[in-house]
Amino acid sequence: MLHDDRLFPADPSVRSVARALYATVKDLPLISPHGHTDPAWYALNEPFPDPAQLFVVPDHYVFRMLYSQGVPLEKLGVPTVDGTPVETDGRAIWRLFAEHYYLFRGTPTRLWLDHAFSDLFGLTERLSAANADHAYDTIAEHLQRDDYRPRALFERFNLEVIATTESAIDPLTYHQQIAQSGWGGRVVTTYRPDAVVDPEFEGFHANIDALSELTGEDCCTLDGYLAAHRKRRAFFKAAGATATDHGHPTALTADLSAADKQALFDRVMGGPVSAADAELFRGQMLTEMALMSLDDGLVLQIHAGAHRNHNGPLFARFGRDKGADIPSATSYVDALKPLLNKVGNAPGLKVIVFTLDETVYSRELAPLAGHYPCLFLGPAWWFFDSAEGMKRYRQLVTETAGFYNTVGFNDDTRAFPSIPARHDVARRIDCGFLAELVCDHRLDEDEAYEVARDLAYGLAKRAYNL
Amino acid sequence: MLHDDRLFPADPSVRSVARALYATVKDLPLISPHGHTDPAWYALNEPFPDPAQLFVVPDHYVFRMLYSQGVPLEKLGVPTVDGTPVETDGRAIWRLFAEHYYLFRGTPTRLWLDHAFSDLFGLTERLSAANADHAYDTIAEHLQRDDYRPRALFERFNLEVIATTESAIDPLTYHQQIAQSGWGGRVVTTYRPDAVVDPEFEGFHANIDALSELTGEDCCTLDGYLAAHRKRRAFFKAAGATATDHGHPTALTADLSAADKQALFDRVMGGPVSAADAELFRGQMLTEMALMSLDDGLVLQIHAGAHRNHNGPLFARFGRDKGADIPSATSYVDALKPLLNKVGNAPGLKVIVFTLDETVYSRELAPLAGHYPCLFLGPAWWFFDSAEGMKRYRQLVTETAGFYNTVGFNDDTRAFPSIPARHDVARRIDCGFLAELVCDHRLDEDEAYEVARDLAYGLAKRAYNL
Amino acid sequence: MLHDDRLFPADPSVRSVARALYATVKDLPLISPHGHTDPAWYALNEPFPDPAQLFVVPDHYVFRMLYSQGVPLEKLGVPTVDGTPVETDGRAIWRLFAEHYYLFRGTPTRLWLDHAFSDLFGLTERLSAANADHAYDTIAEHLQRDDYRPRALFERFNLEVIATTESAIDPLTYHQQIAQSGWGGRVVTTYRPDAVVDPEFEGFHANIDALSELTGEDCCTLDGYLAAHRKRRAFFKAAGATATDHGHPTALTADLSAADKQALFDRVMGGPVSAADAELFRGQMLTEMALMSLDDGLVLQIHAGAHRNHNGPLFARFGRDKGADIPSATSYVDALKPLLNKVGNAPGLKVIVFTLDETVYSRELAPLAGHYPCLFLGPAWWFFDSAEGMKRYRQLVTETAGFYNTVGFNDDTRAFPSIPARHDVARRIDCGFLAELVCDHRLDEDEAYEVARDLAYGLAKRAYNL
Repeated sequence: MLHDDRLFPADPSVRSVARALYATVKDLPLISPHGHTDPAWYALNEPFPDPAQLFVVPDHYVFRMLYSQGVPLEKLGVPTVDGTPVETDGRAIWRLFAEHYYLFRGTPTRLWLDHAFSDLFGLTERLSAANADHAYDTIAEHLQRDDYRPRALFERFNLEVIATTESAIDPLTYHQQIAQSGWGGRVVTTYRPDAVVDPEFEGFHANIDALSELTGEDCCTLDGYLAAHRKRRAFFKAAGATATDHGHPTALTADLSAADKQALFDRVMGGPVSAADAELFRGQMLTEMALMSLDDGLVLQIHAGAHRNHNGPLFARFGRDKGADIPSATSYVDALKPLLNKVGNAPGLKVIVFTLDETVYSRELAPLAGHYPCLFLGPAWWFFDSAEGMKRYRQLVTETAGFYNTVGFNDDTRAFPSIPARHDVARRIDCGFLAELVCDHRLDEDEAYEVARDLAYGLAKRAYNL
Repeated sequence: MLHDDRLFPADPSVRSVARALYATVKDLPLISPHGHTDPAWYALNEPFPDPAQLFVVPDHYVFRMLYSQGVPLEKLGVPTVDGTPVETDGRAIWRLFAEHYYLFRGTPTRLWLDHAFSDLFGLTERLSAANADHAYDTIAEHLQRDDYRPRALFERFNLEVIATTESAIDPLTYHQQIAQSGWGGRVVTTYRPDAVVDPEFEGFHANIDALSELTGEDCCTLDGYLAAHRKRRAFFKAAGATATDHGHPTALTADLSAADKQALFDRVMGGPVSAADAELFRGQMLTEMALMSLDDGLVLQIHAGAHRNHNGPLFARFGRDKGADIPSATSYVDALKPLLNKVGNAPGLKVIVFTLDETVYSRELAPLAGHYPCLFLGPAWWFFDSAEGMKRYRQLVTETAGFYNTVGFNDDTRAFPSIPARHDVARRIDCGFLAELVCDHRLDEDEAYEVARDLAYGLAKRAYNL
Repeated sequence: MLHDDRLFPADPSVRSVARALYATVKDLPLISPHGHTDPAWYALNEPFPDPAQLFVVPDHYVFRMLYSQGVPLEKLGVPTVDGTPVETDGRAIWRLFAEHYYLFRGTPTRLWLDHAFSDLFGLTERLSAANADHAYDTIAEHLQRDDYRPRALFERFNLEVIATTESAIDPLTYHQQIAQSGWGGRVVTTYRPDAVVDPEFEGFHANIDALSELTGEDCCTLDGYLAAHRKRRAFFKAAGATATDHGHPTALTADLSAADKQALFDRVMGGPVSAADAELFRGQMLTEMALMSLDDGLVLQIHAGAHRNHNGPLFARFGRDKGADIPSATSYVDALKPLLNKVGNAPGLKVIVFTLDETVYSRELAPLAGHYPCLFLGPAWWFFDSAEGMKRYRQLVTETAGFYNTVGFNDDTRAFPSIPARHDVARRIDCGFLAELVCDHRLDEDEAYEVARDLAYGLAKRAYNL
């Protein structure tokens, strides 16, 4: 199913350079500095359940496509929050998935799935209604084996380090279990404070109470609230964290006077908050986080631009993260200015910015990253973690920001078996891009080898202090 | 003039796959589900007038380019609305056109014209001042022949079905004539209610009166107005319509409460309307149309984003549709949400969205279409109905929405002789795109054949219920 | 260091056509109708100082990239405005630059530098820490030779004409010296009135006083102010100017009534000006400039979309033009309408528009330029004066505006030794683009030769009346 030359440019001379470059990076260890796998997997090391629970039910890339063509999510076993019953028979779900496998033609999901089916489970035929049961049985058998448990897969995947993402008020129990287990796999956490930074987050005030309780700080005062963040950051850092992550609707940052900051804090904590205050508070907190990063060295990641839960009726039945988050136009030039003017020239600070609006790559983010010492560009994200998306990213970014203001690859996934495939796609696309530069004589071949290794391995370690 | 390999990728291995794919689709019947040809042609079957009247005078793609380089529209015979006299000698117009033919280098217009000149009229030389008279005479002779009348051309073009577009208050006389004529060509209409839905449309109130008269409903009441739409939709459906079409400045939709809707309706009908009310009314009516589609099954098309009649002085002299409509930034995520949250999960509904703002393909429309069951992406439209435009469309859309949330090709044209050329360009570009996926091993060859056929033929029939 | 086939498409058949096209244009004289070289160079003809002063210190493309990776500008010898001392040892600066030369991989700066190092100074090895001193010494020696003085380089570069850019209140002393010197090189000026048109420009009121003094007009009255512009335009025209240039934050134009214009003028001259008034005044002045162009024939250039001096702390220390100007989203459709509706159909007027927001090429600027007789598209600008930037420009613009609504190449540079390299890149990319059209049979080969020559030479002369 997997051709050795997949994703390489078609021209024979370019393909040959791409192949040679790729040969030197394909077996490098995987650095996964940003993702959403479940630390319980590595802590408990229990077998993954059936194929449908592994590949279909939790993967919104998969079920959104089927839903878009009329397949009800209930039939795909997606759990509801309103009590509506859903399909529980893994084989029935799998058959429905296999019947619709043609929908993924031309998508990255198809590449990732084929890669896992082939490399991990030894399947040799493209999935279809005809071979659905065979595939199901084969995968199910593998999942019972000890060498298909999470830790064994972690090692098989050649993961040097993986970062998970936890809420600021998560106790990090599983990370502590991993650390105490004696297992050698490196799993680090990431400080994600959205739940206590975004006044519009579900349960914001309860989250703030939990933060007070966890830290012994009085988060009803600004000083206590900021001190609580500092304590939790230290706690996360002790559990291996090298970075924080912030998922905001926009990239707005703010740099208020002390008085304005206090007044805003009081309004936010005091009761119903206006949309403008919520936005401003998130923006001010990004700057506060950057200031804390100057002290504790955590790398600050900003993920901006998703319109979450666009489909109201679907959200009511199934809850969040069901494939109905839609990117929207996002601007960075004015938005990031307060933070950048406050700390953007400070030595040692690292801010990594991600976007779902590709138009800002050449217009805003590459010019900003090609100037500010603190600023780095995250890789192509989410819908753009794909062959064409990655190509556009390099084409739009490199001429203004170069390679060294980018940070290598993030797999950003909850789908554990897709991790090797995702890194492999990135390595292939980057080698193809470099091969094109070599073949039209914009880059010498010896340089291309060095850059290929940096993009596949070195930049991620360096950018995330791993 | 026409090379067999035109528009195929240059790499020999990719080109060879493209050629093979194209061979299987090039002779498929044309499905033309959205366009603006004149039903009088098929009803009356009269010969087309002279070459200038066929190729230059009515085609704003052609005369806008000459105008942009200083050729007055009066000299090109474009009729005025202010009484200014214009050139009427077809040969003089044609010569001026031929002298400036070099301006079309690199444009789709050039491809379409060359295709028609060569395939339809047997010309063998690129048009120029030197051969202008010969070309004129040759085309003029053909146009006198019976096998160059509209119905004969319809058959020669291998059109399986063509949709025209008529105003909601059009009597559909020509469609009835066609139906009664016994001729076998399938010509269907499309319900286009802009004139009675857009309070800023020229003659809006008179149009509403006409709607009342045609339907026997009192359109001064909201109930009567909506009932009139339902009647006209049924009338159009009886004349073959399978779709409605809505050309709005933006993609705004609305879902007002009954009281707000009534109040808005009263303001709109009552007198001078504010720009905000006009916009809101258009938006609410899109949702009303979607609700009616749930009942009568008509497919809803939204064409958004054109700033019409940008050139004031030109509009005053020549009126609308003179090449001065300019795209502008258009957003869909918030705009479509009211409609999508109202009916977007309803089985059976189909909404096809078009854009003139290419930046929304990967950012907004593909993510929306890859989630909502009702939503499909129209093909690259207007300025982007072109080789590069179509390539960008597939590159930007496919990874997130796949192929099956798109609807095949629309020729969208008033220029009858360009129809085969336009479909041919789309088939070639799609086959080239598929060939690239095959050659970098993202798609198996057997799948590519299936997709090629769907893009050229199957999807358009399915999407438009034809 | 320079491969003969650099920047040509990889496919052998396309490359072979590109090579043939390029052979016919590579030695054409350079037309440089828009740039920022210093007229003092040509007037005084003094040797350029050391290599660091030539290549590093004045080039914000170079030092911004090093700064983005943590190299302080002080160490690169960039002069400060706040008195902070900076490195003055050219060799030390050069070594730091050479150590970081790898940062430019994949950037146009790298292409330009390699070109100059190789072609102009005979270096044969890629710059690195190891060969930094050798490179420094070699360049330094050349710079002492008479045939490396500015006039000799002008001739060596095969410059047929170069335009510089001067403020409206510049006395044009150096241009007069050049004219009187008897030297045959053609150096013309360009009328750049930002300092007396933009109420937010540093020293605006003092600049207005200077304008009054220079012209003998009372610029405190609207009539006097406009008359002063007319006089200065005539003065610039006498010094060879064929164009004006306007660097505005947005593309807004205005067409106010006489009364509104007078009231706006009074507010602007009267004291502290609001941001809205400043913007409106700039917009109105663009229209006034277009009206003057109707009389004196100067070509009007609009450069819009840069957010200047984004980095506050850096601006405070180093002043403007230090690599911290960032593009932002810019719209043209509504913005240009007042000017275009006023004069856009007038015969003879030429308005050339540039953008830093690539999304407007296909959406706004190509449709506008493909309609309005006065409107032409400037080439890919600033960050996009690059291989990928130029390719995207042709791909996005050509299908709607053709080739003949574009104006050839602008080098737009302060970096004298980069001029041949920049023109060479443009010629190679355009020939590659044309070769692709030839090889997929969208353009005949004989046409491609004609277009290649127009893009490299003819269009720039024609567009700028040179």
